[in-house]
Amino acid sequence: MAGTRFAYVRSYEQPDPLLPNTFLVVRVDGHGFHRFSDTHGFEKPNDMRALELMNHAAKDVMEAYPDIVLAFGESDEFSFMLHKSCTLFNRRHSKILTSITSHFTSAYVFHWSAHFPNTRLEYPPSFDGRVVVYPTEREVKDYFAWRQADTHINNLYNTTFWALVHRGGLSTAEAHSRLKGTVSKNKHEILFSQFGINYNVLPAIYRKGSVLLRGETTTTPGAARDGQEGSAEGGMLLIKRVKYTP
Amino acid sequence: MAGTRFAYVRSYEQPDPLLPNTFLVVRVDGHGFHRFSDTHGFEKPNDMRALELMNHAAKDVMEAYPDIVLAFGESDEFSFMLHKSCTLFNRRHSKILTSITSHFTSAYVFHWSAHFPNTRLEYPPSFDGRVVVYPTEREVKDYFAWRQADTHINNLYNTTFWALVHRGGLSTAEAHSRLKGTVSKNKHEILFSQFGINYNVLPAIYRKGSVLLRGETTTTPGAARDGQEGSAEGGMLLIKRVKYTP
Amino acid sequence: MAGTRFAYVRSYEQPDPLLPNTFLVVRVDGHGFHRFSDTHGFEKPNDMRALELMNHAAKDVMEAYPDIVLAFGESDEFSFMLHKSCTLFNRRHSKILTSITSHFTSAYVFHWSAHFPNTRLEYPPSFDGRVVVYPTEREVKDYFAWRQADTHINNLYNTTFWALVHRGGLSTAEAHSRLKGTVSKNKHEILFSQFGINYNVLPAIYRKGSVLLRGETTTTPGAARDGQEGSAEGGMLLIKRVKYTP
Amino acid sequence: MAGTRFAYVRSYEQPDPLLPNTFLVVRVDGHGFHRFSDTHGFEKPNDMRALELMNHAAKDVMEAYPDIVLAFGESDEFSFMLHKSCTLFNRRHSKILTSITSHFTSAYVFHWSAHFPNTRLEYPPSFDGRVVVYPTEREVKDYFAWRQADTHINNLYNTTFWALVHRGGLSTAEAHSRLKGTVSKNKHEILFSQFGINYNVLPAIYRKGSVLLRGETTTTPGAARDGQEGSAEGGMLLIKRVKYTP
Repeated sequence: MAGTRFAYVRSYEQPDPLLPNTFLVVRVDGHGFHRFSDTHGFEKPNDMRALELMNHAAKDVMEAYPDIVLAFGESDEFSFMLHKSCTLFNRRHSKILTSITSHFTSAYVFHWSAHFPNTRLEYPPSFDGRVVVYPTEREVKDYFAWRQADTHINNLYNTTFWALVHRGGLSTAEAHSRLKGTVSKNKHEILFSQFGINYNVLPAIYRKGSVLLRGETTTTPGAARDGQEGSAEGGMLLIKRVKYTP
Repeated sequence: MAGTRFAYVRSYEQPDPLLPNTFLVVRVDGHGFHRFSDTHGFEKPNDMRALELMNHAAKDVMEAYPDIVLAFGESDEFSFMLHKSCTLFNRRHSKILTSITSHFTSAYVFHWSAHFPNTRLEYPPSFDGRVVVYPTEREVKDYFAWRQADTHINNLYNTTFWALVHRGGLSTAEAHSRLKGTVSKNKHEILFSQFGINYNVLPAIYRKGSVLLRGETTTTPGAARDGQEGSAEGGMLLIKRVKYTP
Repeated sequence: MAGTRFAYVRSYEQPDPLLPNTFLVVRVDGHGFHRFSDTHGFEKPNDMRALELMNHAAKDVMEAYPDIVLAFGESDEFSFMLHKSCTLFNRRHSKILTSITSHFTSAYVFHWSAHFPNTRLEYPPSFDGRVVVYPTEREVKDYFAWRQADTHINNLYNTTFWALVHRGGLSTAEAHSRLKGTVSKNKHEILFSQFGINYNVLPAIYRKGSVLLRGETTTTPGAARDGQEGSAEGGMLLIKRVKYTP
Repeated sequence: MAGTRFAYVRSYEQPDPLLPNTFLVVRVDGHGFHRFSDTHGFEKPNDMRALELMNHAAKDVMEAYPDIVLAFGESDEFSFMLHKSCTLFNRRHSKILTSITSHFTSAYVFHWSAHFPNTRLEYPPSFDGRVVVYPTEREVKDYFAWRQADTHINNLYNTTFWALVHRGGLSTAEAHSRLKGTVSKNKHEILFSQFGINYNVLPAIYRKGSVLLRGETTTTPGAARDGQEGSAEGGMLLIKRVKYTP
């Protein structure tokens, strides 16, 4: 066979099984999304269309990979949790990591126009990914608590920051300076006293991120198959927000 | 800080540097492309539009990652070679692997309509990827020789197979059976005597795959050690220079 | 500095942290111990001196590495379990693995003459080692159950085999043949009916291997600190045999 | 079979092949040798007996593992180089690493009394080890140049330091202080002007370390097999010192 004498190069492809019986988290992250969001005019501090697109892509990934039982998204990142006993692709590291990252990316581009009907996609966005292995449930819970705490901290900061800029007339440098050294309480006060914003009634998707749980029971399983879900506030099927108290 | 007590979960993200001073090959592969090509009516044995789309996506990847000096594509796979001294992302395995795989995927979807103007993309395609590390030049050369030998073998088989089916009136089972045990010479004979096809004049992109070299711009094709190269339509041998305007 | 221009070679030493918060088992195994036991006239099927020497070496390892909470030995192998929260050597794989394997080897040679006072050590014995990572307690328990089941199976076979050879007058080939296809019950019967041996009253160290537990409480704490332990049958402190019912 | 239901724990033993066709260096290092050399009265700055014992252990390792073509030792460390095409233990990382580290340790203890006939070994010494993978010859050469430069730097410092202490009557603190900021030239001058020591005529084994090369041709092949070698200065067979100019 023509290729036989070259086939030895295959021996350089090394096995990369992930430890059995551990929780796997695949986190994808937007690559260069500062520029991407500027180019495409994302609203600040949050762009509902962009978040819904992320959720849409994540839902596609969950539908394609039944081993994913939970996903959490915020800003331009999404974390997917595969259950302990998952044997997807024989738990090969690269295969799991790239399949999920690629599927997410593909769905993001594919669904772009549904969420940004009036905004042309200027160039192909990309995401990097990583797998993190957690031996027990406690660590996985803390992982998601960590991501959600991050959501809260970032969003409170960004909400106050952009209120100072958009409505308070500060430059971005002035807004940074104004917020330096402030704690949560101070930011709540600025929002409320200066702008009349009650932070706690802002959309939960901004404050707490998005949680996608594999739906187990539903009275309308057909709806699940069709991928319908409710709005951020309404009676959604697949997408849920978790409760979080910082 | 609210997230502090959860931040220990970061310690589970393990370092994954690739061995310094080695050649890195990232190979991406279509996931479930048998179904994908059926759904989207790819011509058999080769669909020029699909190959050009693959090349387009690969070119985008090469433009985004200057460390890639060479790429080779065939069918639904593409291999990217990063030079030995590459320090992209500090040679972090997951970061390099996913960034390239994701970018390729994104570009594939992004450019779909340019290559398939009359075919709606029905669902998001995805690719898996892997990194292979080669210590010396000899192995990298043999790697690409291996992939190109694979291209040749598969294409000769597929070309003969589909000639037997499309023009010879055989069922796919009969065509498989007819080709069982045949060697290259036999397939050439079938193509020529039965269908008047001179395999060697079929488009080089089908027979030898696509090679993308970082362009140094040359007006003398002889500068390439292997001799001629040209456009996909012309008498290209192995090497096709991509047009690249940064 | 003279060495500076070569120091880049250090960058090829890659990080190798073991996953945090997992149970680590280091298993060492005699290298070429068939020949070694023949050369040094080990008694078959069991040599109490050799087993006590293994236990002595293991005890030294446990005294040197307080992170080891449990060890199990049989024949020419020993398994050491490090507790989940162990941060020995920052959990560096190679460092943990080689330190324990080397210490075990060293102690084995060091204590040789105490256990084989009349047998000269003819050449240096060696051991290989590996680390196995277990995420939960259940798997670690099953690991030790697996090793102990192995002890039982091997010892019942070997005891019967050597009874047939030493006392039954069979050749080793005949003994192998005689035991082919037999189950536990058959071997017990051969031992009892043919040789009057009640397998269950043979020394526990032969049938069940050796378990070393880090002593936590004792009426003679001074003794514990000094590393004293009783005989295999008597009131030992550190070395214990576990109960095992196959 | 009794052990069957536990055997799943074997699946946690992960494959660990080293990259094919690369140079492997295994470096072993004394563990806690500051204390060990104090306890056993090693002469400072160099103890010829201790170095010869290291060389002896290394020679044993090289005889046991023909894949090792070169070894370099200094102080309490030794580096072994396995040739590129080595397939020892199918290039399994842990197996290669621990077998060599364990063999070295064993030989060190085994040969102790031959080199320290009047010094009782007080406790078992141990070594840790690591494998470093180098893709090309240049890096391996630089690796050994790096270790030898290290030998030179350390030995020049230590020789001067102990001359100041033993013969100059300085305390160790004073000697450290005296050498602070000095370069090679200064140390040579101190040795020569203050103590009449010409550093360059000190035994090469101190200044340049020990190199063991697999002997390829010899007029007395029987001697080679018996493991004889010449003195440090004489016509040795296996053990050679390399020339080194910093």
